Amino acid sequence: MWELTIADLDDLTLGATLLGTGGGGDPYIARLMARQAIEDFGPVRVVTPSELPRDARVLTVAVIGAPTVIIEKVPSGTEFVAAVRALARHLGDEPAAIQPIEVGGMNTLVPIAVAAELGVPVVDADGMRRAFPQIEMTVFTLGGIPAAPMSVADEKGNLVVFEATNNLLAERLARSTVITLGLANAISCYPLTAGQVLEHGISGSMTYCVQLGARLAAVRRGEPGAYQEFLRFAQAREFFSGKIVDIDRHTTDGFARGTVTVEHFADPDRTMRIEIQNELLLAFEGDRPVITAPDLICMLDHEDASPITTETLAYGQRVDVIGMPCAPEWHRDGMLELVGPRAFGYDIDYVPLGGVAR
Amino acid sequence: MWELTIADLDDLTLGATLLGTGGGGDPYIARLMARQAIEDFGPVRVVTPSELPRDARVLTVAVIGAPTVIIEKVPSGTEFVAAVRALARHLGDEPAAIQPIEVGGMNTLVPIAVAAELGVPVVDADGMRRAFPQIEMTVFTLGGIPAAPMSVADEKGNLVVFEATNNLLAERLARSTVITLGLANAISCYPLTAGQVLEHGISGSMTYCVQLGARLAAVRRGEPGAYQEFLRFAQAREFFSGKIVDIDRHTTDGFARGTVTVEHFADPDRTMRIEIQNELLLAFEGDRPVITAPDLICMLDHEDASPITTETLAYGQRVDVIGMPCAPEWHRDGMLELVGPRAFGYDIDYVPLGGVAR
Repeated sequence: MWELTIADLDDLTLGATLLGTGGGGDPYIARLMARQAIEDFGPVRVVTPSELPRDARVLTVAVIGAPTVIIEKVPSGTEFVAAVRALARHLGDEPAAIQPIEVGGMNTLVPIAVAAELGVPVVDADGMRRAFPQIEMTVFTLGGIPAAPMSVADEKGNLVVFEATNNLLAERLARSTVITLGLANAISCYPLTAGQVLEHGISGSMTYCVQLGARLAAVRRGEPGAYQEFLRFAQAREFFSGKIVDIDRHTTDGFARGTVTVEHFADPDRTMRIEIQNELLLAFEGDRPVITAPDLICMLDHEDASPITTETLAYGQRVDVIGMPCAPEWHRDGMLELVGPRAFGYDIDYVPLGGVAR
Repeated sequence: MWELTIADLDDLTLGATLLGTGGGGDPYIARLMARQAIEDFGPVRVVTPSELPRDARVLTVAVIGAPTVIIEKVPSGTEFVAAVRALARHLGDEPAAIQPIEVGGMNTLVPIAVAAELGVPVVDADGMRRAFPQIEMTVFTLGGIPAAPMSVADEKGNLVVFEATNNLLAERLARSTVITLGLANAISCYPLTAGQVLEHGISGSMTYCVQLGARLAAVRRGEPGAYQEFLRFAQAREFFSGKIVDIDRHTTDGFARGTVTVEHFADPDRTMRIEIQNELLLAFEGDRPVITAPDLICMLDHEDASPITTETLAYGQRVDVIGMPCAPEWHRDGMLELVGPRAFGYDIDYVPLGGVAR
């Protein structure tokens, strides 16, 4: 158990933005929400799943929608607690703790705000240790844990509770609801027990996120050797450095989709193309896939090493493209069907980055 | 109070098909469901709202989707009771009676099957006394009664419960869910009290439907004077007799939409064009609107006077087009905004058929 205070939010936000791989919602807004909640309700305890009773009820909370919308349609904040309360009521149960479903972007910070308000701890675990665009894309799905019952709430008082026979249908039901409710809503899904988190979740992801953020902060401060230490800690590698020469972006089917092309600084004949569905999913150098989901593609600003989210990509931006292996918990049966390139409709093979992080 | 038995089902089905104005789902399947339920669980009591305690909980049940799909995707039956039970659970309340939300097509008969299974009466009232394609299109909406909380269920165990801030949004949320779940699902909406039914509903619609069906049955048996008696009872008028010379039909946005054109038997220069959104909505002779929502457009087979549903319209079919005034309960503030031609996107005025039925 450790206590998360306002002093931790900078590193946490930086790590979360990086792990968001370009998606996961605008971390700036969520950081303000978390800060306000800690000011109002006090620091949040971060507990490992083993510190909770095995049958303790753990509920998740996240923003769901398209980041391109979320950055403009600022959440009121009430919808997150409303989603959790609705699911708790449906289950006839109160949450003993809140857990992020993805440690990546906004969805790392929103659970902290909700936990502070509800006066319960946050569990140091998640289902992705990155961001993914669809609800079913969690290690919990690999573990056979249903995403439903789940709830979706908006800021006006609209509220939907779902039971779904499988996690892909849960995603489709939530997505069609979110399209109707304006593409920036709150969701609580995968109601878990602490025992299930321990068995199937990715443990330590909140702590990892803060540590990763602290190392990236050192890079941003220009500390000597900090970039190498950051890459070592993340087991990451720099794949490309260049200038954005093309962005094609559209919001469709409830997602922000697009393609971004980067031209190499040293050799203009070398280009990297990155495919987006809310998150950065696949990186190609020429026609050759070099970083593929579920491994992480992170884009850093070449000047100040700040992680770039897909909704802020801009023509002419100078960027470094980093590849990081996904959490080792992903490497089990069913991974490629669930979150490999073909799960996103690309007919290419997964290119493992080798080495498993941490 | 009267007891609805298998002997009533033929007239009820015939009346319901007519009041379905071409929509409301395939009555044949629903008739089999109602028959089976009465055989299994016994006759169903039909009660007026005033025969129930004022605060008695009345829940509705209906099929929701596109008739073109419903005719092919036969319901399993379990989804209807599942939708009612889910809403009852959400409300923390048990239904004292079941009520059709529309007396028109399948949705007149489904509530009978559910009432039989649950062992509760059916309320002799509804919210339309015809079929309409959208959930918010009820006299309850005119009375300020919210459609939500509501529930949607499918035959596989998928289940969604909604709270919505207004009835149009309730429709849009249900529609997007139904599109995801396959366009033929069960819905329970407008949870009411008997007092609300009495104050805002259309009373006697079940009885009216049986009586109307009995008169149409007499027409179909070729009894002398039966057609005139049928028209008189329904306050109806025959507007057109001819042959279907064109049908344009497509299933889009979760509805069956289209246009059917009829050429007059006696004068081939006269054509009637009828616009469809699940139901027959507007009838034009040439460019002149002659029957408009919320009044009823009913198509009868010219040979045997059987009412024709939109999904069975066929080229070359010989038909009579009947116009019937809507239930008098519709005539109050807000009617045209909710169910007039412009509510369906047609920039024409309502053409009252004059006289209000019964």
